[in-house]
Amino acid sequence: MVGFEPVMLAPIAGALALAFAGYLTFRIMRQPVGTERMRELSSTIYRGAMTFLNKEYQVMVVYAVIVAVILMLVVNHQTAAAFVTGAFFSALAGNVGMRVATKSNARTAAAAKQSISKGLIVGFSSGAVMGMCVVGLGILGVSIFYYLFGDPRIIVGFGFGASSIALFARVGGGVYTKSADMGADLVGKVEARIPEDDPRNPAVIADNVGDNVGDVAGMGADLFESYVGSIIAAMVIGFTGVTVGGVMLNQTDAVVLPMLLAAVGIFCSIVATFFVRTKRGAGLKTLHAALNKGVFGSAILIAVASFFLIWYFVGAVEIFWAMLSGLVAGIMIGLSAEYYTENRFSPVQSIAISSQTGPATNVISGLSVGMLSTMIPIIAVVGAISFAYYITLPNGLYGIAIAAVGMLSTLGMTLATDTYGPVADNAAGIAEMAGMGQTVRKRAERLDAVGNTTAAIGKGFAIGSAALTALALFSAYTKGMADAGITMNLSITNPSVIVGLFIGGMLPFLFCALTMRAVGRGASLIVSEVRRQFRTIPGLMKGKAKPDYNRCIEISTSAALRNMALPAALAILTPIAVGLFSPEALGGLLAGSIVTGLLLAITLANSGGAWDNAKKYIEDGHLGGKGSETHAASVIGDTVGDPFKDTSGPSLNILIKLMAMVALLFVPLLLKIWGA
Amino acid sequence: MVGFEPVMLAPIAGALALAFAGYLTFRIMRQPVGTERMRELSSTIYRGAMTFLNKEYQVMVVYAVIVAVILMLVVNHQTAAAFVTGAFFSALAGNVGMRVATKSNARTAAAAKQSISKGLIVGFSSGAVMGMCVVGLGILGVSIFYYLFGDPRIIVGFGFGASSIALFARVGGGVYTKSADMGADLVGKVEARIPEDDPRNPAVIADNVGDNVGDVAGMGADLFESYVGSIIAAMVIGFTGVTVGGVMLNQTDAVVLPMLLAAVGIFCSIVATFFVRTKRGAGLKTLHAALNKGVFGSAILIAVASFFLIWYFVGAVEIFWAMLSGLVAGIMIGLSAEYYTENRFSPVQSIAISSQTGPATNVISGLSVGMLSTMIPIIAVVGAISFAYYITLPNGLYGIAIAAVGMLSTLGMTLATDTYGPVADNAAGIAEMAGMGQTVRKRAERLDAVGNTTAAIGKGFAIGSAALTALALFSAYTKGMADAGITMNLSITNPSVIVGLFIGGMLPFLFCALTMRAVGRGASLIVSEVRRQFRTIPGLMKGKAKPDYNRCIEISTSAALRNMALPAALAILTPIAVGLFSPEALGGLLAGSIVTGLLLAITLANSGGAWDNAKKYIEDGHLGGKGSETHAASVIGDTVGDPFKDTSGPSLNILIKLMAMVALLFVPLLLKIWGA
Repeated sequence: MVGFEPVMLAPIAGALALAFAGYLTFRIMRQPVGTERMRELSSTIYRGAMTFLNKEYQVMVVYAVIVAVILMLVVNHQTAAAFVTGAFFSALAGNVGMRVATKSNARTAAAAKQSISKGLIVGFSSGAVMGMCVVGLGILGVSIFYYLFGDPRIIVGFGFGASSIALFARVGGGVYTKSADMGADLVGKVEARIPEDDPRNPAVIADNVGDNVGDVAGMGADLFESYVGSIIAAMVIGFTGVTVGGVMLNQTDAVVLPMLLAAVGIFCSIVATFFVRTKRGAGLKTLHAALNKGVFGSAILIAVASFFLIWYFVGAVEIFWAMLSGLVAGIMIGLSAEYYTENRFSPVQSIAISSQTGPATNVISGLSVGMLSTMIPIIAVVGAISFAYYITLPNGLYGIAIAAVGMLSTLGMTLATDTYGPVADNAAGIAEMAGMGQTVRKRAERLDAVGNTTAAIGKGFAIGSAALTALALFSAYTKGMADAGITMNLSITNPSVIVGLFIGGMLPFLFCALTMRAVGRGASLIVSEVRRQFRTIPGLMKGKAKPDYNRCIEISTSAALRNMALPAALAILTPIAVGLFSPEALGGLLAGSIVTGLLLAITLANSGGAWDNAKKYIEDGHLGGKGSETHAASVIGDTVGDPFKDTSGPSLNILIKLMAMVALLFVPLLLKIWGA
Repeated sequence: MVGFEPVMLAPIAGALALAFAGYLTFRIMRQPVGTERMRELSSTIYRGAMTFLNKEYQVMVVYAVIVAVILMLVVNHQTAAAFVTGAFFSALAGNVGMRVATKSNARTAAAAKQSISKGLIVGFSSGAVMGMCVVGLGILGVSIFYYLFGDPRIIVGFGFGASSIALFARVGGGVYTKSADMGADLVGKVEARIPEDDPRNPAVIADNVGDNVGDVAGMGADLFESYVGSIIAAMVIGFTGVTVGGVMLNQTDAVVLPMLLAAVGIFCSIVATFFVRTKRGAGLKTLHAALNKGVFGSAILIAVASFFLIWYFVGAVEIFWAMLSGLVAGIMIGLSAEYYTENRFSPVQSIAISSQTGPATNVISGLSVGMLSTMIPIIAVVGAISFAYYITLPNGLYGIAIAAVGMLSTLGMTLATDTYGPVADNAAGIAEMAGMGQTVRKRAERLDAVGNTTAAIGKGFAIGSAALTALALFSAYTKGMADAGITMNLSITNPSVIVGLFIGGMLPFLFCALTMRAVGRGASLIVSEVRRQFRTIPGLMKGKAKPDYNRCIEISTSAALRNMALPAALAILTPIAVGLFSPEALGGLLAGSIVTGLLLAITLANSGGAWDNAKKYIEDGHLGGKGSETHAASVIGDTVGDPFKDTSGPSLNILIKLMAMVALLFVPLLLKIWGA
């Protein structure tokens, strides 16, 4: 060890990420917003998003205060403080990311007017702000609490805070965005036959707000949770020191290493953002290649840098292989998502073909593609955890946690390409609503199309990392129980474990059912409201009167808020109740929920993405093109896929992580109190 | 023990069941078939079904010969003989049941012309033939091999034979029936706008054949497998003797008891068939009540009789409670299926209401109902296995297996009400095609409607019993490994087990994807053929020319046969491959497959049933009635549900049982050879 404390790299990386985010924001804000109409649209979306966030914060604050008090009473003040900070940091990252995203949409459209490459840079920069905020605040929070208390078990509180916010952001944001989207489409596109993003549609602003609320703030909070969760799990497992291969890591090294790997990831991601450049008249392929350069570039940089870091810092190269297995698994899951959801490949085309015999065969074929698409990700996850475990024996659990850290080490970059999607989507919407003309609309749509792919890959990545993080947290839970002196028989021949597996396996199904129902109900309220406005506002359809956008925003907001309570209660109270009843059943419950959660989430995300692109494939002129019966059938699958890929599927990421986090934080402790 | 050997009750019950089936068949055959047209239709359906079965047998024979040779080489001659017998008995039960069912459809329609109660009796009797054949041949086979060799491990071969046939029957039959059904509907109802069961539709006979092939032969083979599987699992677990509560059961008693309980179930089921009677002008409710009297009557009789049997024979009343918990769980699962799929209750009505905003919301709402409906069955299964386990400690695994036997003890009766469904469905079809007039068609439809409910309940029961049987087989596998001296660390913290859980959890998704895709492809071939016939056969639409029914039958048959190979290979080779690699991973694989298999099967069965009835609810005149946009939307959900409830969902029952059976039969043995 040299004079400089390596652990200092973590807060430095965090500060640098935030500074870089500030720099990017400054550059974005200097871009022109465009015409008055564009400014107006952008600020309406901005205000709608803020309205939702502020309402959501009211709920969160009540929740956070109650939980903080409970933590103070049951655990300790430090953990309560960590919890509040975790919740605040997650909300802050989401808030900043979303502010910048909603400020960037019109600017991206305006930049696309100059050239498509300018549009890409503005849109991507705004995504990078989100990415940098998430990793920066994440690593800062973890390292500050490590500096203050030196005990990873307290930092679990930070993770729990982040998890809680993620639940609200994902479930609330997911219900919001799809209630608005489906409602807008069902009346606008299907009944009134006006195009997507038409300003006469009263739900159009709510729809655009939803893209930000769900895909920016929700996705950000989700991955903030995975990011800090994986680091914390590795720290908790490393807390008693680990032996890997022939090398013994003392407690400090084993706890600090995950933070250092994350820090390296941040440095490399910042460098890699500069790889995302393209030339003026870029086509779809070139745009795609530009973003890929960023993603793969950051992965390669991180692999090289962390090899040297591990070699120099702890000397156990086995840990590098564990980390690399996570990184590779993440990329495999992303590529598999791309294969199953991209126009160019046979799965999507087979869905398009089956749309020729109507919506029913379209739906069946999409579901079957989604289910089939679980295979590669499962193999990737299973391969990564076995490899990571066996190579880092005798402390294999540490290896699994490090694999999760490895998968998430590229987050600064992957989240940037991810968040770029909704920004480009909004830009295309604004280009349409503001009547910017064919050329700009075409460019914006091209930017949007690339964004759809990155969003699908991003979703796959979010799911895979959630599963790996949840597994790491689950391992930390079993280790925590052992450390607390509670012995468990976690054999699957133990009926308690089987009971846990079944209940845990069922929870994702229940969670999906609840969130889908919420979207269905929210969408039907929007449908009634849009129909009402079409009927009662004179001159609306002729474009002579303005619709009441705010009413739709309010409806989506209240649908989202009303439907957060039950899933939240389910995710937090079930593990505590089951754990107090039987910690072995809780073990089974966590394992069961991770298995079916991962499978369902992949199925829902990929079938949703595949339906979306099958529709686009037909719109591109295949099989009869737009306006044909085949196209109409494909629109139905696309609509079914909306809550699949943007509400229910992503919510499962949170469910499995949050339950594991709750188990890790509360159960060993409560059982100790119980036993005393 | 008195002079009479109690074990003799088992073959006696089996023989009695077969005799009763013969008596019922004789009575059915004495009924008039009706007009020449009806005889013709019935015999076309009969020949179509036999064509399929004969083709299927060709595949099965090749398979059976290969497997029998392998068993002779790897295991022993006795097991190979048991395997061949199991396969033969299962095929025989299905064959006889289906012959009678296809002979009864026209007779049921003719009887309904006299009165609805006559129709009920003929239809139900034909179902009872199937029920009695299955339980009779099942218990006979098990008891004969027990008499010959006295070793339950050899009888596992019998179960494996039954499992293999079940796979072909369920997957093949499921693909057949839904390819034909969807194909017929997609062109007939949607494009040509001719009614269901219209004789001008070239696929109409294939559709009616499919009802028999899938719902009679497939369902029968499925439950034959569950029936013998649960008995065999209990015998294997009891083979080293068990201690329950304070009572020690010696090896013979512990092995014989499951057979005796099954025998008692047969006696009581025969008695209960006489409860199924109704008066002449019976409405839906009365018909329903008549069938319920049979089901609940048999359950109560069995509970009382088995209490005395257990008390007298082994003296450990705990075993009675274990059995009762299975029986109650079966009824709970059935009632839950009824609640989620019946018009009268809110879930189906909510789907109908959401059809008002189009097919997409209809599909989402149906899926959400299906997912929500997993809760009660999971609680029932989990409750039954925990209760059965803890009450029969220290030999709790025996209790779990007895619970499965208990759930299946009513099978003679439940399968009768179950098989009644497709017979009534066919009768309604024949009434339509033969132009028997409004009154008879109405009566037949009423009989069919009741049959739909019993079919939904029966599906729930088949799923629940499959899960419990698979769990019992899984327990037998772990015990078999221990007996073979192979120690396993089955903790869910062991990465091999986690890997197994993930892969096992994924297999049902893969299986579903494959079977759905097979149906989609089969249906699209039927669609092309029907369109071709409409186009090329002059006078067909005017009813002046006859369509070529056989071509559609051939297409469905070959679609079914072609798509059996991959799922069969998956179900048989995966557990062997994984087990040889790591028996612990195989343990995880079995547990994982049971959990997600059960969850997916319930979701698919109940959402399929709910969509079907939501459509019927609208057709009854609600929300705009037949011909409205809402109705059109509900038809789409119904079509999506077709492969859900009749192909993919039921196939999962087989998958989870077959994999457990393969594990139990091969793996301990192969590992022993491997080790030697």
